[in-house]
Amino acid sequence: MDYDAIVVGGGHAGIEASLALSRIGFSTLLITQNLDAIGRLSCNPAIGGLSKGNIVREVDALGGEMAHLIDHSMIQYRILNRRRGPAVQAPRAQADKFTYARLAKETLESQSNLSLFMDTVVDLVLDKEGKNLVGVKTARGHVISCKVMVLTTGTFMEGRIFIGEYDAPFGRLDEPAAMGLGTALREKGFPVGRLKTGTPARVRKSSLDFEKMELQDGDPVLMPFSFDYDSVERPMLPCHITWTNDKTHQIIRDNIHRSPLYGGKIVGKGPRYCPSIEDKVVRFPDRDRHQIFVEPEGVGTEEMYLNGISSSLPEDVQWDFIHSIAGLEHAQIMRPAYAVEYDYLDPQNLYASLESKHVGNLFVAGQTNGTSGYEEAACQGLMAGINAAQKLKGEKPLVLSRNEAYTGVLIDDLVTMGTKEPYRMFTSRAEYRLNLRHDTCDQRLTGKGYSVGLQSEEKLERLKQKMEKIEAVKDLLSKHKYEQKTALTALKMPEVTIDDLRSSIPELDAFDEPTRYQVELDIKYEGYIHRQDRQVSRFEKLEGLLIPDTLDYGTLEGLSAESREKLKTIKPRSVGQASRINGVRTSDLAILILHVGKGGRHGNV
Amino acid sequence: MDYDAIVVGGGHAGIEASLALSRIGFSTLLITQNLDAIGRLSCNPAIGGLSKGNIVREVDALGGEMAHLIDHSMIQYRILNRRRGPAVQAPRAQADKFTYARLAKETLESQSNLSLFMDTVVDLVLDKEGKNLVGVKTARGHVISCKVMVLTTGTFMEGRIFIGEYDAPFGRLDEPAAMGLGTALREKGFPVGRLKTGTPARVRKSSLDFEKMELQDGDPVLMPFSFDYDSVERPMLPCHITWTNDKTHQIIRDNIHRSPLYGGKIVGKGPRYCPSIEDKVVRFPDRDRHQIFVEPEGVGTEEMYLNGISSSLPEDVQWDFIHSIAGLEHAQIMRPAYAVEYDYLDPQNLYASLESKHVGNLFVAGQTNGTSGYEEAACQGLMAGINAAQKLKGEKPLVLSRNEAYTGVLIDDLVTMGTKEPYRMFTSRAEYRLNLRHDTCDQRLTGKGYSVGLQSEEKLERLKQKMEKIEAVKDLLSKHKYEQKTALTALKMPEVTIDDLRSSIPELDAFDEPTRYQVELDIKYEGYIHRQDRQVSRFEKLEGLLIPDTLDYGTLEGLSAESREKLKTIKPRSVGQASRINGVRTSDLAILILHVGKGGRHGNV
Repeated sequence: MDYDAIVVGGGHAGIEASLALSRIGFSTLLITQNLDAIGRLSCNPAIGGLSKGNIVREVDALGGEMAHLIDHSMIQYRILNRRRGPAVQAPRAQADKFTYARLAKETLESQSNLSLFMDTVVDLVLDKEGKNLVGVKTARGHVISCKVMVLTTGTFMEGRIFIGEYDAPFGRLDEPAAMGLGTALREKGFPVGRLKTGTPARVRKSSLDFEKMELQDGDPVLMPFSFDYDSVERPMLPCHITWTNDKTHQIIRDNIHRSPLYGGKIVGKGPRYCPSIEDKVVRFPDRDRHQIFVEPEGVGTEEMYLNGISSSLPEDVQWDFIHSIAGLEHAQIMRPAYAVEYDYLDPQNLYASLESKHVGNLFVAGQTNGTSGYEEAACQGLMAGINAAQKLKGEKPLVLSRNEAYTGVLIDDLVTMGTKEPYRMFTSRAEYRLNLRHDTCDQRLTGKGYSVGLQSEEKLERLKQKMEKIEAVKDLLSKHKYEQKTALTALKMPEVTIDDLRSSIPELDAFDEPTRYQVELDIKYEGYIHRQDRQVSRFEKLEGLLIPDTLDYGTLEGLSAESREKLKTIKPRSVGQASRINGVRTSDLAILILHVGKGGRHGNV
Repeated sequence: MDYDAIVVGGGHAGIEASLALSRIGFSTLLITQNLDAIGRLSCNPAIGGLSKGNIVREVDALGGEMAHLIDHSMIQYRILNRRRGPAVQAPRAQADKFTYARLAKETLESQSNLSLFMDTVVDLVLDKEGKNLVGVKTARGHVISCKVMVLTTGTFMEGRIFIGEYDAPFGRLDEPAAMGLGTALREKGFPVGRLKTGTPARVRKSSLDFEKMELQDGDPVLMPFSFDYDSVERPMLPCHITWTNDKTHQIIRDNIHRSPLYGGKIVGKGPRYCPSIEDKVVRFPDRDRHQIFVEPEGVGTEEMYLNGISSSLPEDVQWDFIHSIAGLEHAQIMRPAYAVEYDYLDPQNLYASLESKHVGNLFVAGQTNGTSGYEEAACQGLMAGINAAQKLKGEKPLVLSRNEAYTGVLIDDLVTMGTKEPYRMFTSRAEYRLNLRHDTCDQRLTGKGYSVGLQSEEKLERLKQKMEKIEAVKDLLSKHKYEQKTALTALKMPEVTIDDLRSSIPELDAFDEPTRYQVELDIKYEGYIHRQDRQVSRFEKLEGLLIPDTLDYGTLEGLSAESREKLKTIKPRSVGQASRINGVRTSDLAILILHVGKGGRHGNV
């Protein structure tokens, strides 16, 4: 067997990587341990959220698949922070897990140039010099050649599940970990570490008392994540909200010594911003309650997800604290909460293209790079797939800047600073977030998707038409009056919405909701956006100062020892990236600027 | 945790057992290793077939679920042997695997009195005397009490998968075996053996050349398996047929030494009537080809099932022989064929109620009893569930006779003769098969389903109306002429079908297809049926001679030593059952009849 590309893993990163490579035209093999688990939503039954919803739409604008999958499987949709600034608005949807996974599998299977094979990768095959990857070895003894590979192992690489005193070599409960690869990578000198994450219990819908919870409906109208669609029609289901209480916290405190985390069995760090309930209780002793979203896992299933109370406490403790919560007094537990610890590779070992510095032709994406979250995985998988394809074509990698995509922020953060705990995206990580609005992803990224071969002429044309509609609405607003001002000016006022203008400007009804929504944000925040644009210009200057990949930091006089070491390891592609390396000082940057100004060329990526 | 009943395993036996117990009204817990694998069609994507289709309809008439599941997931339907005698006609349907499993899971989840829990049972808990089961222990340390249990472990109990030189502790590929229980049962003195089965490779639809195969469409009209429905509306997909050839066989012969079966790694016996392709090639050296049905695994998936060429040869050999077959020259293999070896319990250790003779309150069903096939598993699961419920109610077990259901034949065969290889149902196993027609299952069994609490008054009423329609059609036929005879008499002629009569008797159009079909069979084979009824009367006499469960065979003079030993072990419930025990002689039966005639009481069941 011989392929242009191999993608290891059928999760959210692997799906995007394998589709990108095959759609661009390269023969691609996706190897997954279990064809029945492709696209499985391992943890919460939802896609999107603050900054994560933006990532989904970035993936879509570049030609990825995640938005299509959620658009055809959503069972609730909400724009979060609709009454706050545009930079922090984002779409989030509940998914029918069963439908999501089925669609993912069907999409991969029907893709030309893409083959699927069920096996476990246990080692890399390198060339004689040990510098470049040329294939993989599998658990069942296959040796398969390839020119490039994307590694997306999720929680499966040497995975181990913990529930109180119980542990087992699984990546998800009852799903065998991929044993062998982590050890093989350690032996080959890769910087392998351990991280952990967790998932809450699943309880039976008919055993819950929703009367004691707060109802949370979605928006009345569903909107598509994908820029390819104008609307979505799907069945809708509500979520519910409840809270932990003193008794819950007391049960947890009384049993905290039985947690594998506190007992020292788990060494990997967990996600700081998605902590287990025992972490919350210990770290925030003053909080008298924590919120729990009770989310359906699908339309037909009784399984409900308890968002907010993941745990690795023993099951008897889980039962007790769940039953102490309003509405969950008689909850039947169908699956226990558990923690999972797994191998990841330090992403500082990657170029911004997501190619390994240690072994050529090896691209790495998703949780293997230390991230957390489906969307974070998907955008890396897509970029790794795109850049593996660029390498196969002998073309320059596509590197997104921090001011054009959350995906750019994420990858820049990872490769520049690494991560010691599961990295999750936040709006606050993006300095220029006004530029990264979810409704404008297509304007920023469709052209880039087209340039790498993932978007069609038709999509560019569709974007052009959308922009014309937006201009037409703005034109309309500038020609109509509202309360003695032009409607355009009136819309800048915080208390005026575009919907308020519709009664006096009925022509607005001819335009669709996404167009009106975008115009409203464009106009309302025009001032902020202009101000940010000036910051972006300064930022872009430093980003444009590329550092030659041949630069020998040993010869650069005046660098501090710490900076010299870090610059050697990270190999930043630009002075901008260098400036974000922890410990690199302003004086060091000045030296770099001086040198690069003299003879800088295209740097590493 | 404390339940009336525990069912171990979420396959076809476990589904029926848990639904029966909970629907009859007992609090039931289904424990399965993986909630995502409930109702998975592990091997071929089809339900029904010769005698197996009858079993599905028996399960339905008794109040089971399998017919509903296939009626809502079928993608092709055929009555097999439509042009042959009624005893060998049977329905078979291709299933959309994904839909089948989803419906199974949703049906279990929405059932009241039934809870689902994800864990692995590793041991039984017995009472102090060690005579009766009182609960189970799980891998994660739960001890759960129950009054009765149904054990349905499929291929998972100490399961091991073999592909050439590769083997792994799985029940299905990448699905962990249930380790521990087999050993625990051995230690408790259960008669544990090993069996093996296998499954063929799955290949990608778009890589096949269907032009080189024979098309096999289903019947133009789908008919429901369930007597609860009048019709089915579902998308339809064709199957295809191709054949192995000399080259295929040569490749297999050249590599037969690499088979784990021939190399001695597998000790369990495989299913004689569903052999691997290497078995076929070795056992039938004169056959120049073997048929392969190429069956879709679902509507949306590209995975295709190669019915007829299961194998445990190494993958390189599998690739070679698959690619030697017309239409499969470029087949992309998505999953390899494999053999799986697993623990089963000798079913001679069971009463006809499927309760263990060794440990009270323990009922056993499905592959754990040494059978093969989804339908064989389902009917046992249903009967085990019904009889566990009967025991809880303090009522007599429901034992179906060999002349009223294939289910009765199957269970009688198992408990009387045991099995040394996976037991599959065949029409030929039933002496009175004319009585076991698939279209008359409801007449035979709905009342029994009602008597145990699984069928409603409405179903009985529905059956009554159906019978009235059948009488109405017969009445119509007796009043109309066709070629100078009454239509009723004309229909007895082999060349006349009921459809031929429709042009001259347009009133027939008012009746539905199932009704016309049944009348045709009733009339055409009336003579045979009468003849068989006389045989049945003789059979029923011996079945009616019940053997007291207190009978001490040691005191019965004149029995042969072999018979005495076997009768002691099997504990037949009737002289009829005793007559089917291998090695029990006519002279022994005469002694039994004499004894039972004197003072026989209700026997063991």
